Amino acid sequence: MVLASGIMSKTVAVIGLGTMGAPMANNLLEAGWNVVVHNRTRSREEALAAQGATRADSPAAAAAAGIVLVCVSDTPDVEAVLVGDDGVADGIADGGLVIDCSTISPAATQRLAEVFAERGVGYVDAPVSGGSEGAIKGTLAVMCGGKDEDVTRARSVLEVIGGSVTHVGPVGAGQVTKAVNQVVISGTYQAVAEGVVLARKAGVDPTRVVEAIAGGAAGSWVLTNRAGNMIQDSYPLGFRVRLHRKDLGIALDTARNDGAVLPIAAYVAALEDALIAQGHGDEDMSALARIVRRTSGVGDGPMG
Amino acid sequence: MVLASGIMSKTVAVIGLGTMGAPMANNLLEAGWNVVVHNRTRSREEALAAQGATRADSPAAAAAAGIVLVCVSDTPDVEAVLVGDDGVADGIADGGLVIDCSTISPAATQRLAEVFAERGVGYVDAPVSGGSEGAIKGTLAVMCGGKDEDVTRARSVLEVIGGSVTHVGPVGAGQVTKAVNQVVISGTYQAVAEGVVLARKAGVDPTRVVEAIAGGAAGSWVLTNRAGNMIQDSYPLGFRVRLHRKDLGIALDTARNDGAVLPIAAYVAALEDALIAQGHGDEDMSALARIVRRTSGVGDGPMG
Repeated sequence: MVLASGIMSKTVAVIGLGTMGAPMANNLLEAGWNVVVHNRTRSREEALAAQGATRADSPAAAAAAGIVLVCVSDTPDVEAVLVGDDGVADGIADGGLVIDCSTISPAATQRLAEVFAERGVGYVDAPVSGGSEGAIKGTLAVMCGGKDEDVTRARSVLEVIGGSVTHVGPVGAGQVTKAVNQVVISGTYQAVAEGVVLARKAGVDPTRVVEAIAGGAAGSWVLTNRAGNMIQDSYPLGFRVRLHRKDLGIALDTARNDGAVLPIAAYVAALEDALIAQGHGDEDMSALARIVRRTSGVGDGPMG
Repeated sequence: MVLASGIMSKTVAVIGLGTMGAPMANNLLEAGWNVVVHNRTRSREEALAAQGATRADSPAAAAAAGIVLVCVSDTPDVEAVLVGDDGVADGIADGGLVIDCSTISPAATQRLAEVFAERGVGYVDAPVSGGSEGAIKGTLAVMCGGKDEDVTRARSVLEVIGGSVTHVGPVGAGQVTKAVNQVVISGTYQAVAEGVVLARKAGVDPTRVVEAIAGGAAGSWVLTNRAGNMIQDSYPLGFRVRLHRKDLGIALDTARNDGAVLPIAAYVAALEDALIAQGHGDEDMSALARIVRRTSGVGDGPMG
């Protein structure tokens, strides 16, 4: 494909056209990439095809693009797409590159990268944060693991879908970074929930307390951006409890395998299991405040 | 006392000349206040007297100043200074004002304020954060509780010792705000400690992980300013474990009295008790990472 500018456009396959993958593919199209798309539920390919993407019948067929970006839900999904029947490994040529933007197990990532290395194919794990809004705007934070030359090559794709692309270390380091991110936010959300509930129970306006402390050592993104949800008892998305719980499961599996003891993360995982069972899995994870409020006897609704 | 400018200088007594109170008194002197000082260990008054402060033999004697700023260690110390033998209550005249910059119990604060209200004396609780460095530079964050007119009057003093003065609510609200601050930082420190240990155990450079996530939803003052201590296994002050533990005790007492359930704060309190018993009470509270490192089998010293 030759663009009007005379520059040969590059080709990338995007496999997985969900909440995150579809806007990534769209942004790549808009940036002038030749985009091949494939999705397990094939009908999701249609909107992108209407915008100029080429449909592929299988991950193996999509892999002819040479560079393959995968964005699916969990470790087994990535394994099916990459090394399952008619998977990417069956169709990608020597010299190709796999970029996995899914959030999955760091250990599985290293095993998959070895499979592709045997075929002369590079591998970059590139999980993202920033949610569907960041995917649509192309402002995701991308955390990469891989060899220098592979990450350098992946940047031409990743800088279209992301606002920042950080190369953290070798293959798997991106997934570890995402896991650490989810562990750190676990305790931070819970700490903020405990703080606002204490303010309320002690009879002081939590909004004013948050304003008073947000600029100091207690300050965090969560305190500034999510304490309001907890005070209002309203948890619009945001970042879904069930997605954080899934990611936290990866972090806790990694911790278990590697011998790290993470009591706060494990405790928050238990609270999130309860929230999901109680029907709150699709709320923003600031809904952790529901449990602190309830255990402390704070009634439903905005804190006065 | 008449200043060169012809404006009558105002007088304030400062009781408690420790790490925080002494630099507060010094800053008030430098701002042109007539400062009366008293300290239980009288010799601590000498340096300030040499700079122009007037020594008082007792809290009651100091209270003749009319405005009394107290900065001592804990609830019993404030009670002794204010309502003990020869206390401020014995010496302060109708129309006076007590400003308590100590971090103490919100409930005790309300009881003390009632004692002074009966004497026609205003009361402002004004705990601070920002540590000894903030006290020396006059940049403390001051969280105030009290009646509007009392806080307005206290501002002339508090704006000398602090960089920000926030009026949160009625008497006790400043102490509640400080308690919430200590609860929020508890979970945030622990979350960051768990995160850096997970990175290390999973074989990824924690410093690069922190850099990658600090700008997003995991971002906090603690992550930016204290993860480095945890990675280096070096915990210079900062904010002492034993002082945070004392403040957290006030928060947990308040929670218990008011019916708030704060599991993360309670867990961190237990860890801090252990750190103190193990001889780490005078380290910065980022030393919480010592326990996460040990339970996870990370050796002493910098993480590679």
